[in-house]
Amino acid sequence: MRILYHLPLSPYARKVRAVLAEKRLPFELREEKVWERRPEYLELNPACTVPTLIEDSGLVIPDSGVICEYLEEAYPDTGLLGRTIGERVETRRLVRWFDEKFAADVTRNLLWEKTMKQALRLGAPDAAALRAGYANLKQHLTYIGWLAEHRRFLAGANLSLADFAAAAVLSSLAFIGDVDWAASPSAKEWYARMKSRPSFRAILADRVNGQSPPPHYADLDF
Amino acid sequence: MRILYHLPLSPYARKVRAVLAEKRLPFELREEKVWERRPEYLELNPACTVPTLIEDSGLVIPDSGVICEYLEEAYPDTGLLGRTIGERVETRRLVRWFDEKFAADVTRNLLWEKTMKQALRLGAPDAAALRAGYANLKQHLTYIGWLAEHRRFLAGANLSLADFAAAAVLSSLAFIGDVDWAASPSAKEWYARMKSRPSFRAILADRVNGQSPPPHYADLDF
Repeated sequence: MRILYHLPLSPYARKVRAVLAEKRLPFELREEKVWERRPEYLELNPACTVPTLIEDSGLVIPDSGVICEYLEEAYPDTGLLGRTIGERVETRRLVRWFDEKFAADVTRNLLWEKTMKQALRLGAPDAAALRAGYANLKQHLTYIGWLAEHRRFLAGANLSLADFAAAAVLSSLAFIGDVDWAASPSAKEWYARMKSRPSFRAILADRVNGQSPPPHYADLDF
Repeated sequence: MRILYHLPLSPYARKVRAVLAEKRLPFELREEKVWERRPEYLELNPACTVPTLIEDSGLVIPDSGVICEYLEEAYPDTGLLGRTIGERVETRRLVRWFDEKFAADVTRNLLWEKTMKQALRLGAPDAAALRAGYANLKQHLTYIGWLAEHRRFLAGANLSLADFAAAAVLSSLAFIGDVDWAASPSAKEWYARMKSRPSFRAILADRVNGQSPPPHYADLDF
């Protein structure tokens, strides 16, 4: 059975889980506490990040970006990059936007400060980081809302990796109760559509170390 | 004429310049001071990073990762990703390694501290960052040397994007005199091969704001 090493709140792992499910590729999840730097895991992925995918053939694919490109090439049915050159550029641009810019502007300031820092006993969340994270999240939600108003999905007329990159990171932030959807009704409407996809169901059922998400986390009508 | 917005010492822009030259795609360089956040540039690339490529058709492609995937699809001759699925995974893994891990471990601590911070008048380089950067660079050079000893090029038997990602960032660090090649003779031998490629020549001829690189920067036999 295909194995995906992950952490429950990792947006990168959640993106890959949704993409695997969307492509109907069965897999088994294994939690990897990357901060323990387990030697066997470093052999698989020297960067020691999650996710890492292991195929039945033994092929090891680290990094969510590398995994998604691999899945598109190895399982081209249910293509999630777009068909035309222009669509593919826009999909990849937005994936980088959420994986890098959103991560630096928002995720690093909220998810890292409120969960990982605590788990690693690195001290209390930094108040300035939280303030910056909430302010940036508002801007990003406005941008997502703008995209969702002008297009059926974030990168264009069709569902793409961009939708999964954005929905994955928002689902992690929603788990810790940090998304104020009032900032953009259009973003909320788009996210409700993403939540209702069967490929997203397992993610919304996640519970982390006994933590419970806020009441509307998994509601399709929230 | 194809336009590439860049900064002379940006490893990401250097990678794309080398790849365009390797594929024999002519282009015109335009320097973009991203910290000025020029409104016209934000229209092209809302993340306001370099590089951004503008094709003759008007197609705008931001981000070196997105540009390289685009160039592979639009100009498949001189393919730089590898032919088999396994080769492509390894190439992309190493590109991410240099673009992200090397960047966080080394480039951020040396190139940022010594050039950008100064240019933006954000203060003197942080001594702890420099120490960490030099120590990490030594480890990374050892890894590059190990790859170069076991394979003809970094990702395998053939020249790939991984070689350009690594050579680009090392060329920027060599410009500021920060690469101690004594750490790995094999890495030095591989880099000498990269420097001797015609696609690398224009990069080595760069001069930045009147600064001169150290004496051996552009020497093919250094």
